[in-house]
Amino acid sequence: MKTKEIKIGNISIGGGNKIAIQSMTNTPTTDVDMTCEQISRLITAGCDIARVAAPNAEAARAIKQIKDFCTIPLVADIHFDYKLAVTAIESGADKIRINPGNVPIKGLDEIIDCAKCHKIAIRLGVNSGSADKNLLEKHKDKNLALVESLLSYVDYFEKKGFYDIVLSIKSSNVRETVELNKLISSKRNYPLHIGLTEAGVPEVGIVKNSVAIAELLSQGIGDTIRVSLTADPVQEVFVAKEILRSLGQKVNGVEFVSCPKCGRCVINLEEIASVVYDHVKNINKNIKVAVMGCEVNGPGECADADIGLAGGKKIAFFKHGKIYKTVEQENAVEEFLKEIDGITK
Amino acid sequence: MKTKEIKIGNISIGGGNKIAIQSMTNTPTTDVDMTCEQISRLITAGCDIARVAAPNAEAARAIKQIKDFCTIPLVADIHFDYKLAVTAIESGADKIRINPGNVPIKGLDEIIDCAKCHKIAIRLGVNSGSADKNLLEKHKDKNLALVESLLSYVDYFEKKGFYDIVLSIKSSNVRETVELNKLISSKRNYPLHIGLTEAGVPEVGIVKNSVAIAELLSQGIGDTIRVSLTADPVQEVFVAKEILRSLGQKVNGVEFVSCPKCGRCVINLEEIASVVYDHVKNINKNIKVAVMGCEVNGPGECADADIGLAGGKKIAFFKHGKIYKTVEQENAVEEFLKEIDGITK
Repeated sequence: MKTKEIKIGNISIGGGNKIAIQSMTNTPTTDVDMTCEQISRLITAGCDIARVAAPNAEAARAIKQIKDFCTIPLVADIHFDYKLAVTAIESGADKIRINPGNVPIKGLDEIIDCAKCHKIAIRLGVNSGSADKNLLEKHKDKNLALVESLLSYVDYFEKKGFYDIVLSIKSSNVRETVELNKLISSKRNYPLHIGLTEAGVPEVGIVKNSVAIAELLSQGIGDTIRVSLTADPVQEVFVAKEILRSLGQKVNGVEFVSCPKCGRCVINLEEIASVVYDHVKNINKNIKVAVMGCEVNGPGECADADIGLAGGKKIAFFKHGKIYKTVEQENAVEEFLKEIDGITK
Repeated sequence: MKTKEIKIGNISIGGGNKIAIQSMTNTPTTDVDMTCEQISRLITAGCDIARVAAPNAEAARAIKQIKDFCTIPLVADIHFDYKLAVTAIESGADKIRINPGNVPIKGLDEIIDCAKCHKIAIRLGVNSGSADKNLLEKHKDKNLALVESLLSYVDYFEKKGFYDIVLSIKSSNVRETVELNKLISSKRNYPLHIGLTEAGVPEVGIVKNSVAIAELLSQGIGDTIRVSLTADPVQEVFVAKEILRSLGQKVNGVEFVSCPKCGRCVINLEEIASVVYDHVKNINKNIKVAVMGCEVNGPGECADADIGLAGGKKIAFFKHGKIYKTVEQENAVEEFLKEIDGITK
């Protein structure tokens, strides 16, 4: 089912628009320079929407200065205090995210009025820890209670004539997150912001986000994604792009492949692959780059790579499966990066 | 459809047995000490089956010494030279993996005879680079050509009366890998070893492996998995366990959650989470551990964690959502690890 289209600053989500990639800064929002520097890196990586926390009035006011710099839509994340939401909106936030469960009713009314007046959307976002106690008693099922909590907030906003709504419902557990989003998407057609909460360090979190987000998107559920990692948020954007690419979607940037080193490999593949990946991940050209350990799986297996490197006593460079140059190991990486730049610049 | 059950050393795969986790050493197989040390770490991490490359006779013979040490089934990876397969089998390999496309027919016959005699299974594994040229001409579709290549090898082995077969068909592309495995699983009921080839560095490869393996397993396709990463193979095992956990399967070990740091966080969450994760990832108890940046999402959102830490000017420790202790930031991590050991030892 097609979701409602909602405008967030200069982009639209839902209604069949492309899946927007979000991330959230982890700098103190009051440190405008640091926050803008991080947003700048997020934009370069391919982030479509940035979110900042506004835990106090100074942070909410800082949004004004950040907005002057930020070329993508900016979202303010608000908890507890409706006045922070009002300040954030008046400072120019393109959307705010609240958990309506931790804002008093009177505060919600103020937020709704202010958002209406400034014509911005609100994300109503609940997490599995925040189900209403009474509903939990009634349902005995945490997921059903959480969905009913969120629906009751949606009802309230609609009763007040507010419809520029984005929804999110998250858990740190993949199965719960998938079920929660299936439930909510069957009930309302507001755009869904999908992802997990507290997904963990990259080794754990990349797996959880990939499994949950891919499963939902492949069922047509989800309009904007936020990969959540305990890491530099820029990494969240690269992971998000890779998830979309894994689902067969066109994503700007280099497709990178490298083999697992095995007992046949005589080069320091892990380090070489890592250096090459760090170089290519910010290149905004749609080419495929391969870093291969040996001749067994090298040029032949990566015949569709636009450019590749294969290990050996000397390092072979290949294009579309054909070796065109061999170089000494010691200069190989530096030369390879130059070759890549040559075909992408 | 249930696959055929095949014995690999002291375990069975296929036929509804639990999904076996595999990995492959990246040490020189001839360096027996180094290889055994890596296998030991793989076993501790939860690896069910280990594979080593046998690129030359010395490596194939080293399998005998490695087998003396290795308590899980050991697979030898062979390319080109059938004599290496024979040596590996005679040295005690519990299974061999070959790409029949790069072994001459006469060699295949020798391998079949030797494997029959030693009652071990053979994995016939093809990768997307190795489709037969003639079949590629015929089908114009790389996937169909590759599937027909693999089926022609299966036919040959069956004609020779050999049925202890495991199949794999891989690509570095997620969509291709999923389609290839769907195709092959609809044609034959031998156990399937699933995964990608050349999946890349962790940031890219964890995503690709997670999406492909989760999608296939959730459709009932796949009996054993190998996460392929350009990284320490031990990481492949942790990722494999996390994929299975994300699919709702019971997996031994600690479930770890941590929030993405945001502008509300006043502690060095990334470092703390990483240290705690490295400590718990080898603990073989089924508990849930949480590392949270602040009080907003802390104890409440992780009420189901057996033990957790939440940031603030002082660090709070909580169990099942209830704070039971606060400690100074400087001693927090060390004390928290002790608390974890206290409930797991």
